[in-house]
Amino acid sequence: MHALTHAEITQACTLLPHWQLHAEGNALQREFVLGDFMQAFAFMTHIALAAEKHNHHPEWRNVYNRVHITWTTHDAKGLTQRDITMAQLCDQVYAAGRS
Amino acid sequence: MHALTHAEITQACTLLPHWQLHAEGNALQREFVLGDFMQAFAFMTHIALAAEKHNHHPEWRNVYNRVHITWTTHDAKGLTQRDITMAQLCDQVYAAGRS
Repeated sequence: MHALTHAEITQACTLLPHWQLHAEGNALQREFVLGDFMQAFAFMTHIALAAEKHNHHPEWRNVYNRVHITWTTHDAKGLTQRDITMAQLCDQVYAAGRS
Repeated sequence: MHALTHAEITQACTLLPHWQLHAEGNALQREFVLGDFMQAFAFMTHIALAAEKHNHHPEWRNVYNRVHITWTTHDAKGLTQRDITMAQLCDQVYAAGRS
């Protein structure tokens, strides 16, 4: 899977307003704040199952109710459509949990 | 729960040879290497359930098959017996998964 071009990244980011593009343009990062640890880990579990299904895994950290997620594609040394897809999926899972 | 004394920490660390004591003596850290993401997340799930049960939660990060865990007790501004207990539990879960 090819790394997205600058133009493709710019376009994709319009769909991901809560994500921060790393200065080098090779990673997307967002911190999610849940209600407590149980909710945070439930959120992570949902993402983990999807990650395994898509065979594309996050770099992430968790402290109690906070989950910080980074999407990047090491093989492509940049962002790929997979990262965009997974970032959108995170947003959807997060929104569903709060609705 | 009171912060452990230097002597208590030294004694506890003899039981936790794979853990690194933070320079300030207020945290224990270890990186666990599993077979793949699925195994890493299964390991994390086991720890998460125990953490919730003990009401003492880790600071941790995961990249594919690696899980880096930090135990500290913010309320006590140091290490407490809870951190020692949870670090030992991590070792036990890890060992059980590899036996």
